[in-house]
Amino acid sequence: MSPSAITPEGGSETGVSLREVGEFALIDRVTTDRVQPATTELGPGDDSAVVTAADGRVVACTDVLVEGVHFRLDWSSPEQVGRKAAAANLADIAAMGAVPTSLLVGLACPSSTPAAQLEQLADGLWAEARSTGAGLVGGDLTSAPVIVVSVTALGDLQGRAPVLRSGARAGDRIAVCGRLGWSAAGLAVLGRGFRSPAALVDAHRVPEPPYSAGPQAADAGATSMIDVSDGLLADLAHVARASGVALRLRSRPFTVAPRMAEIASALGLDPLRWVLTGGEDHALAATFPGDAPLPEGWTEVGAVEAPDEAGAGVTVDGRPYDGDGGWVHFAKY
Amino acid sequence: MSPSAITPEGGSETGVSLREVGEFALIDRVTTDRVQPATTELGPGDDSAVVTAADGRVVACTDVLVEGVHFRLDWSSPEQVGRKAAAANLADIAAMGAVPTSLLVGLACPSSTPAAQLEQLADGLWAEARSTGAGLVGGDLTSAPVIVVSVTALGDLQGRAPVLRSGARAGDRIAVCGRLGWSAAGLAVLGRGFRSPAALVDAHRVPEPPYSAGPQAADAGATSMIDVSDGLLADLAHVARASGVALRLRSRPFTVAPRMAEIASALGLDPLRWVLTGGEDHALAATFPGDAPLPEGWTEVGAVEAPDEAGAGVTVDGRPYDGDGGWVHFAKY
Repeated sequence: MSPSAITPEGGSETGVSLREVGEFALIDRVTTDRVQPATTELGPGDDSAVVTAADGRVVACTDVLVEGVHFRLDWSSPEQVGRKAAAANLADIAAMGAVPTSLLVGLACPSSTPAAQLEQLADGLWAEARSTGAGLVGGDLTSAPVIVVSVTALGDLQGRAPVLRSGARAGDRIAVCGRLGWSAAGLAVLGRGFRSPAALVDAHRVPEPPYSAGPQAADAGATSMIDVSDGLLADLAHVARASGVALRLRSRPFTVAPRMAEIASALGLDPLRWVLTGGEDHALAATFPGDAPLPEGWTEVGAVEAPDEAGAGVTVDGRPYDGDGGWVHFAKY
Repeated sequence: MSPSAITPEGGSETGVSLREVGEFALIDRVTTDRVQPATTELGPGDDSAVVTAADGRVVACTDVLVEGVHFRLDWSSPEQVGRKAAAANLADIAAMGAVPTSLLVGLACPSSTPAAQLEQLADGLWAEARSTGAGLVGGDLTSAPVIVVSVTALGDLQGRAPVLRSGARAGDRIAVCGRLGWSAAGLAVLGRGFRSPAALVDAHRVPEPPYSAGPQAADAGATSMIDVSDGLLADLAHVARASGVALRLRSRPFTVAPRMAEIASALGLDPLRWVLTGGEDHALAATFPGDAPLPEGWTEVGAVEAPDEAGAGVTVDGRPYDGDGGWVHFAKY
């Protein structure tokens, strides 16, 4: 298309909407001249993409972010939303012990959405994918009353057995890697109308999952693994149920960053609740055999035991945690 | 979860909403006791799925259907919406010359959506996937103001080279396989408040892509291929542009079903316009070398020529077609 079809003469592009630019032209804008990794045999532009799966298997997951449910554009930039949508999926690949290879993105939004916002969102998706070595290989763009970003990530196990939620065994050690509670603390700050401390607010806007820790844990013999998306206790409850074990956490090994402790104090909250129940940081939680050394970056936080008469479950310092059980969807719509 | 948490005592399940059932319980309902194909090494329930990719490559595509844009629940049942969402993606896999292996589904909907509707939608996804040998291996469920169904399909090229849009060469023959115009005719009927003829209305509700014709065309030497989702002329325009050729269609080989001709006559419309520009039937269009016999089920409808001074493009009986160029998104939102 000719540039004149996009930009009104002499005008700025800021306010030009998706409707004015058009579906195909916008797709061209966000896919042309991007550098694809070697795994991308065929990128965007055809009916489907083709990605290498050298391992003979492909790991795949899908996660959907909805405006007003998972993000607000007055709290996060479109680029940050893109990064977060990518990170949520890339972390699910890492949690299997795999390395991400590619993303596909189904994007639905109002036709009045500024094209520049969508380009920035795509920039965020690309940036986060690239940080793991993955490419954005395909997608779809259509209209909806709010922005919905549905991302599918594909990954390569590189010969590893996938690390499931069901493999934890009595005698294993429980360990975590990555930030916990930072996103929840940032959300609490934003929800009260503040924009700082930046470290916490930014952690809510863009998580920093420890991607490479996933394959490293698999190589170190992890018996089970999960990505902490809904909150550590809520996600470990999935592991406890799938594995038929009890997970006994100790609160002492969990550290609270000084900045987080300050903010919690100012808000009259217990920061440990953020750490144990806050979602969206996409840390990794895993269990390791009792005699195996933990890989670098992992912190031991508890032990796996056989279930007692109360059945499988998660306890903190010997008791069920008396707090919010994690992120529950369906609040807004 | 206990059944009593889902069904109010003595009540029917019809009106029980997703909010009442809960995200995880609904996911359990639509994933438990499903039969997975042999390619599914790990199905729903963990951070990611694992699917075999025996070919060493995986074909992947994403397509999003939005309530009010791509479907209306007063025109289609939830099961039909599920089938259609799956078909749109499975056809994109076939159009590469590949065989579908799996679907992942990102579903966003209002929390007031009846759980039974979502189960029926999942039944439709499963049924269409199963018709191609694929399984539903993973997904995500969250809330949004309207129903958004984002489907990713994965497929196996089984050693074939992918058939791209860019491979058409002067001297090739153009051929189509599958129904054309039926969905558009059904939409025209529905849009005027009618519910019959059933054959046309049902074709709009659930397309019937000729899935196996994709790999067969690849085996027969197809030089380019595309799935007709936006309308034959609009989609062939992508092939013409990507291949740098002119596509010369003849109108005579296109047949109009008697029922479609009757309805077009009653509505005062030219049924050929439905055939040439109607989207969503997910027929396949391909080009074959001039000397290669066409596989069974394909109809020759034109020839590929070098571009003339007007450049690449698509003509019908020697002229640009004077009609609607295909489905344009962003009408409603």
